[in-house]
Amino acid sequence: ALAQSSVTIGGTVDLSVRHVKNGSLGSITSEASGANSTSKLIIRGTEQLGDGLSAGFYLDGTILADTGAAGASTPAGQLWDRRATVSLAHSRLGELRLGRDWVPTHLVWSGFDPFATLGIAGANSFRNFAASRALGQAFGTLPEAQQANPTLRVSNAVEYFLPAELGGFYGQLIVTAGEGGTTAAGFTKGNGFRLGWKGKGLDVAAAQFTTRNATAGEDFKDQVYGASYDFGVVKLSLAQRRWVYASDRTVNTLVAAAIPAGPGVVKLTYVRADQKGATAALSDNDAHLIGAGYVYSLSKRTALYAHASRISNDGAASFAVAGGPAVSGNPAAPNFFGGQRSTAYEFGLRHDF
Amino acid sequence: ALAQSSVTIGGTVDLSVRHVKNGSLGSITSEASGANSTSKLIIRGTEQLGDGLSAGFYLDGTILADTGAAGASTPAGQLWDRRATVSLAHSRLGELRLGRDWVPTHLVWSGFDPFATLGIAGANSFRNFAASRALGQAFGTLPEAQQANPTLRVSNAVEYFLPAELGGFYGQLIVTAGEGGTTAAGFTKGNGFRLGWKGKGLDVAAAQFTTRNATAGEDFKDQVYGASYDFGVVKLSLAQRRWVYASDRTVNTLVAAAIPAGPGVVKLTYVRADQKGATAALSDNDAHLIGAGYVYSLSKRTALYAHASRISNDGAASFAVAGGPAVSGNPAAPNFFGGQRSTAYEFGLRHDF
Amino acid sequence: ALAQSSVTIGGTVDLSVRHVKNGSLGSITSEASGANSTSKLIIRGTEQLGDGLSAGFYLDGTILADTGAAGASTPAGQLWDRRATVSLAHSRLGELRLGRDWVPTHLVWSGFDPFATLGIAGANSFRNFAASRALGQAFGTLPEAQQANPTLRVSNAVEYFLPAELGGFYGQLIVTAGEGGTTAAGFTKGNGFRLGWKGKGLDVAAAQFTTRNATAGEDFKDQVYGASYDFGVVKLSLAQRRWVYASDRTVNTLVAAAIPAGPGVVKLTYVRADQKGATAALSDNDAHLIGAGYVYSLSKRTALYAHASRISNDGAASFAVAGGPAVSGNPAAPNFFGGQRSTAYEFGLRHDF
Repeated sequence: ALAQSSVTIGGTVDLSVRHVKNGSLGSITSEASGANSTSKLIIRGTEQLGDGLSAGFYLDGTILADTGAAGASTPAGQLWDRRATVSLAHSRLGELRLGRDWVPTHLVWSGFDPFATLGIAGANSFRNFAASRALGQAFGTLPEAQQANPTLRVSNAVEYFLPAELGGFYGQLIVTAGEGGTTAAGFTKGNGFRLGWKGKGLDVAAAQFTTRNATAGEDFKDQVYGASYDFGVVKLSLAQRRWVYASDRTVNTLVAAAIPAGPGVVKLTYVRADQKGATAALSDNDAHLIGAGYVYSLSKRTALYAHASRISNDGAASFAVAGGPAVSGNPAAPNFFGGQRSTAYEFGLRHDF
Repeated sequence: ALAQSSVTIGGTVDLSVRHVKNGSLGSITSEASGANSTSKLIIRGTEQLGDGLSAGFYLDGTILADTGAAGASTPAGQLWDRRATVSLAHSRLGELRLGRDWVPTHLVWSGFDPFATLGIAGANSFRNFAASRALGQAFGTLPEAQQANPTLRVSNAVEYFLPAELGGFYGQLIVTAGEGGTTAAGFTKGNGFRLGWKGKGLDVAAAQFTTRNATAGEDFKDQVYGASYDFGVVKLSLAQRRWVYASDRTVNTLVAAAIPAGPGVVKLTYVRADQKGATAALSDNDAHLIGAGYVYSLSKRTALYAHASRISNDGAASFAVAGGPAVSGNPAAPNFFGGQRSTAYEFGLRHDF
Repeated sequence: ALAQSSVTIGGTVDLSVRHVKNGSLGSITSEASGANSTSKLIIRGTEQLGDGLSAGFYLDGTILADTGAAGASTPAGQLWDRRATVSLAHSRLGELRLGRDWVPTHLVWSGFDPFATLGIAGANSFRNFAASRALGQAFGTLPEAQQANPTLRVSNAVEYFLPAELGGFYGQLIVTAGEGGTTAAGFTKGNGFRLGWKGKGLDVAAAQFTTRNATAGEDFKDQVYGASYDFGVVKLSLAQRRWVYASDRTVNTLVAAAIPAGPGVVKLTYVRADQKGATAALSDNDAHLIGAGYVYSLSKRTALYAHASRISNDGAASFAVAGGPAVSGNPAAPNFFGGQRSTAYEFGLRHDF
């Protein structure tokens, strides 16, 4: 990172070679960006105002380093898609923050996943708008809806964060302006919170974000809670994230371990998606993922890594690892994937700057 | 700002919470970017070549920090929409500058507005392509035309600027290449100038920019002149900007005051749009804005601010503060807004870096 | 360039005023970006890992400084269109590089052209997807195909570069993942190499890149070889680049000279496009360009320049210098340009930062 006076420039370029086999549909070899840490560019800074008061800004945008694309593809031009905020903070009173930011539920979920929700074994593998009924029904499956939907980040937010020194407690409140628009067009009217405690190897946290203008007048609830404990030889995580919309729900459960090994870390994960819907057939569309990885650190900033994972679908569920042949959950489609397995491995190089 | 050797990185993140009520249409609460100072990213630098000669570059692009978008939305990809220039300058002979830059009329108009044409009380509130006949007739009302139109910035410019030390005089000449295209497609063939004098508390200036390839073969004239005087306890501004196209014209008149108050400044403004058209009904579509604001500086770089404003429409005029429910000037439309009032307030936080 | 710790920010802003006359179709005066050196923004860095090992990243994106646009126009959002890579390098073993990068054929071709393939006299003047049969047949003439086609850069690459100290030898291997898509959609499945030797004023090199998923199942071959010798008073270059697709081929031959003159350099170039197709008429569509230029350096980073060039078409060939009135190779079209001349001159200012 380049830091001087008030501006710091940093980020990551992380690229991997990935191979995904989607059951009977065959396989594809590709190059993928951000499987260990999202490729990104960050420009940020803080200013000390005296008496414990400080101001700051943060601009953070995705880079798809395999093609050179930057920011969100939908809407075009959303360069700082990860975060664009301005803050006024006090060391004892906490921080007021305005702008585009992560939803609190993602922060908790990502924090308990040793894969940080990234790559072929990440805990967001079931965050799929076609295969998850709750997401698809609440937001639709168009690219705009997927990008705009508030299970990752949200625009037009006003947030309050607890100060750093509260005996291990951390947390935030968030409210977002719907601006008179719909979630499908990127205008999320919502509110939520995050609360956790960290200390002596233990980390427990819970969060919720409720979208008030999801499709058809129903609220969409995104809830997460979890805990991790660091035994030294292994750090164990257990977390659950629930997406609830009318009669549809997808419950993601994560059990994971991170084991220090030489200059790196071994990661093991199991994620299960338990779906409930209006019919027994919909409720049968469950799936689970098992994944493993090894990250070999060449320095604090640079690492080589290898991941392997497999998604197994029950019923007509059609979850798949990203990067393989296109799949469909529609039994009449030529690429119908219901109930099949998606297997993948990848090798990559991550460099933080 | 981060400055070293030849490159400086700076900019602003400015976000506000805004509430706009548009007469009978109701109100919207939103988050807005750039109400006190445009949220932006600037990369620039200069190189001393010796004998008073220097070279420089300037890249400046809008950030919509409420959503993370950067640059112009139309055309997509115009990241450095505010300015992209290369310069060769001499301390006594002046500066030759090539690229995309502000039109001289905006520089004068913005300079006399204590709100710098930004936010709910800015003097560009009547720069509306549907409600201003002269703009709409000359450039059309499509997003492309609005973005491309040369009342703010212009591409493909060749400019000459007077040197800094001329006994208070300042100014520029500008000519832009139309490149065989139309203004509606972003190809402006035009020319103009700016000339002013500043000293002893007084600032007087005038500017003109004529677009030679506006719609239907007519030239579009953008003219501005004004003066400000700093009495110490108050700085008063008076300015007028005229948009003239065939039989249509919109004359914007600004009377404003900036009053230092503690670590901040109180701002008061009155702007009137006097329209003349081919019919008496069109000539009746006038409007005026009254606005007030207070900017409280936490440091040179960081400030809190509050703005309030009201636009009152005469006849069937349908000007409105940005951010409210969509309005129409068409009497048959369900959101017809002719003759109604638009009222707004906003609170924000600005941070320069 | 701004350099500190691990991040360097640099680039170029280069703008010229250009005049192009296309035979009977008349002329256009425009402002053009990057005629001497591509206007661009670069963010890059390296990290020493010890024992000769290092990691690095490189982000490089085009700026169209005449309009402020950044990155590729198609696909939208490809900000780092020139290069986006991460590398792991060893001083004696060479470099492994992943990401979007230049194809090796362009590196050789551009290296032997004193105009670096840029501006009105550049050796890529015949890289035209409508007028070159081999390119048009292999990739199509849509904007997407032109942007995605692998004669300039390619996404999803895995590369190996020879280390720096090999007695003057330099070179690379490259393979790119097609990711199951078509070249027209930006998914190039290809492989190639570059090999050269440089020393004692001589530089010889050859390269090839074969696209395995070009249209209609045929491979597209891009081959280049050349040499330059620096006599001191003049540096002479001779190179040939061949695009071969089924029965169509375009053979570009370059003869050029660079002559140091005072604080600058005089450049002279002759480029010939010899086309062969399925019919005698197609084989008659040849063309040649003659060009001259003078670059006057104000410093290492800043220069003024002037270029002049003329393209002469044989048969129904319709090559033209970029920036003039639109031309067509279709004899029935009103802007049919077959067999005519395109003449151009430009004056510009380049500034590296």
